[in-house]
Amino acid sequence: MSQPLKIGIAGLGNVGASVFRLLADNAQLLRDRTGCDIRVTAVSARTRGKNRDIDLSSVAWHDNPVAVASNPDVDVVVELIGGADGAAHEVVKTALSLNKPVVTANKALLGKRGAEILSLLKASTGTLSFEAAVAGGIPIIKALREGLAANNINGVYGILNGTCNFILSDMSRTGRAFGDVLKEAQDKGYAEADPSFDIDGVDAAHKLSILSGLAFGCVPDVEHIEIRGIRKITALDIAFAADLGFKIKLLGIARRTARGIEQSVEPCLVPKDSPIAAVEGPLNAVYVDGDFVGKVLLMGAGAGGNATASAVVSDIVDIARGRALPLMGMDAGKIGPLKSANIRERIGSYYVRLMVLDQPGVIADISAILRDHKVSLESVLQRGRDPHQAVPVILTTHDTTEESIQQVAAEIGRLKTSVEPPYLMRIEEFKS
Amino acid sequence: MSQPLKIGIAGLGNVGASVFRLLADNAQLLRDRTGCDIRVTAVSARTRGKNRDIDLSSVAWHDNPVAVASNPDVDVVVELIGGADGAAHEVVKTALSLNKPVVTANKALLGKRGAEILSLLKASTGTLSFEAAVAGGIPIIKALREGLAANNINGVYGILNGTCNFILSDMSRTGRAFGDVLKEAQDKGYAEADPSFDIDGVDAAHKLSILSGLAFGCVPDVEHIEIRGIRKITALDIAFAADLGFKIKLLGIARRTARGIEQSVEPCLVPKDSPIAAVEGPLNAVYVDGDFVGKVLLMGAGAGGNATASAVVSDIVDIARGRALPLMGMDAGKIGPLKSANIRERIGSYYVRLMVLDQPGVIADISAILRDHKVSLESVLQRGRDPHQAVPVILTTHDTTEESIQQVAAEIGRLKTSVEPPYLMRIEEFKS
Repeated sequence: MSQPLKIGIAGLGNVGASVFRLLADNAQLLRDRTGCDIRVTAVSARTRGKNRDIDLSSVAWHDNPVAVASNPDVDVVVELIGGADGAAHEVVKTALSLNKPVVTANKALLGKRGAEILSLLKASTGTLSFEAAVAGGIPIIKALREGLAANNINGVYGILNGTCNFILSDMSRTGRAFGDVLKEAQDKGYAEADPSFDIDGVDAAHKLSILSGLAFGCVPDVEHIEIRGIRKITALDIAFAADLGFKIKLLGIARRTARGIEQSVEPCLVPKDSPIAAVEGPLNAVYVDGDFVGKVLLMGAGAGGNATASAVVSDIVDIARGRALPLMGMDAGKIGPLKSANIRERIGSYYVRLMVLDQPGVIADISAILRDHKVSLESVLQRGRDPHQAVPVILTTHDTTEESIQQVAAEIGRLKTSVEPPYLMRIEEFKS
Repeated sequence: MSQPLKIGIAGLGNVGASVFRLLADNAQLLRDRTGCDIRVTAVSARTRGKNRDIDLSSVAWHDNPVAVASNPDVDVVVELIGGADGAAHEVVKTALSLNKPVVTANKALLGKRGAEILSLLKASTGTLSFEAAVAGGIPIIKALREGLAANNINGVYGILNGTCNFILSDMSRTGRAFGDVLKEAQDKGYAEADPSFDIDGVDAAHKLSILSGLAFGCVPDVEHIEIRGIRKITALDIAFAADLGFKIKLLGIARRTARGIEQSVEPCLVPKDSPIAAVEGPLNAVYVDGDFVGKVLLMGAGAGGNATASAVVSDIVDIARGRALPLMGMDAGKIGPLKSANIRERIGSYYVRLMVLDQPGVIADISAILRDHKVSLESVLQRGRDPHQAVPVILTTHDTTEESIQQVAAEIGRLKTSVEPPYLMRIEEFKS
């Protein structure tokens, strides 16, 4: 039995308290698996008195989280404060300056300060582990960096935000409107009071930037992700998609192309009998497409204290076993900026929802615009008729460029018969 | 850049040739990810002249595979011969006696000689890595031993044999009989000329024993697995299961219970809208159920040269990074024999297919037997009527013990009106 490994936890929210509990509950198991005692020696949180159902009596308390990092009785610093700036940033900087390994669940920090973190790591013998930053308990970081390390990665994509998947699943099951489902999710605590971080795709984009960095050996770069949220999806879209054989999922997608790395977060239509369509509720699911392995899917709880604690402690186990890896799975000197592909040049098929006046000549006008941009139709759907009133018309296209379909949408939107801007979604045929 | 890592490959079948090709094709990537050159220096196979589409000109050839292990110009021995005995066994023994790390895809060796391998490892500074032994390219060994290492594992289960899943998927899609589909699979090379290793569940059992060993920290023990294959499944079962809302999948299941570890390989009914039901064709899929993480699913190619090579090389990458782990993820001294639960005591619900004469009193006789054994019915299905001829009757039960349902089946089988032995399958309600 080697020396005990002394853990400091900065941040005792849901995840922090779960980490504390896991380390206590599974202490014997962890001792068996690592050969050493893993012991929490110091913690910090905003409110000392709060009831967290954990026993802090033998642990040093710091009001200032940075003091956890600098406490000489702490070997490994677990940062669970969150956010790219402020205390979380200070804790990480301090720990690395003291050459201590850091374990974090902080996707914003990595997504927005990837380059800075890499340069801090170059000057430190510390490491930064972040299994918990993406997809909660799912060991996707380990899969990308180790389990599938033999592969050139063609793409990584999936359901990265449980709140959005919960909302879309519920809309699909009940036929209710987006706003109603969101409100209920907020009332039940599944969605935040300010939901924009989730439903506008920002959270998924932070996670995708990290997956992309690992997959392609580059600095996480959230700036070059095309981000489209789920606010505009209507019950009608869900119903039309179902008629066409699809479900709608918010996907983060990063693909290697000849033009560079294509990165987007957006609602997509996926075939309803595909495994990813079967991922319902608050789960996450991530595909990795490698040149030798083909497509591998990992699915599980993408959030929640216990699942995320599982990921945090798996990183601690690696450190206890002396097995922490470089941030992006290779020497920092080999990590360059991401070469981003122009999203307007990407190719794919699209779902287009129009709201147009039901009068003669409308479809002829639309068809002419499609023809002028060389976009060919797969199907046209119209439900019911209502002369001279607005009716929804759904188009699905064959492969086209994003540029062409955006121009088509803009021109259709300018028709006098068009009563609202066309709404576009990608159709992603995940075969596996 | 450190010293090159010199690889010897014993066995150049489909997987061996793919490993050779991967190491050549992705050499630069592997150099970036490990910081060292990974170089094949020696190989062995049965037939030297065979065209494998790989360049062996700068590699030592050995007719005797054991010579690969003992070649001083080999640092890591990759055993891809297969089988629990003979050459594979000799290669592994020789390599470990020389303190060399071994990488293998050999599930039979681990499933049947787990205790011996553990004792060889105790006397060696070598290691044995086996990501490729279970579920091909899916990094399930790494997930269990590392990514989910913080958890006490409640169970591990899934689709572990691609051939069986291919056959069952095809039966489900086409409505054809088992024999027809098997024959076509054999003609196309998806199933072996002697298919019993796959379709009788033996291959899945070897894999399950390894997963079980990792999950529960014990010696892999294929002897205590209840094994039932897929030969008796009829097109009728597939159709009735579909009517009841299920698909049939061959599952390997290992569960921790108060009575010990329950291990079985058997065809089960799974809800048709569950993610595992969406796993079609030759894919594999494995659930790990941990006390903190909940249920995590990994899915991907369970066989094939390239996918399996991905797993073999991920083990080589770990060795190159100086990160090989003890066999079962903990010190060999902590690994004991598996405490096996008696399968007759397990509890669950069942599908029972009867073939009985369509005459008055039959259902009353069956009902009396069920009542006597306290087995309560969920549903009874009969399709069509054919007085005094044999007709299929499908029962589904509520929770009962295996003991009770087996007694029920035996007693029904002894009724004069029963024209063939009842056929039983478990109903597994995977929720996730």
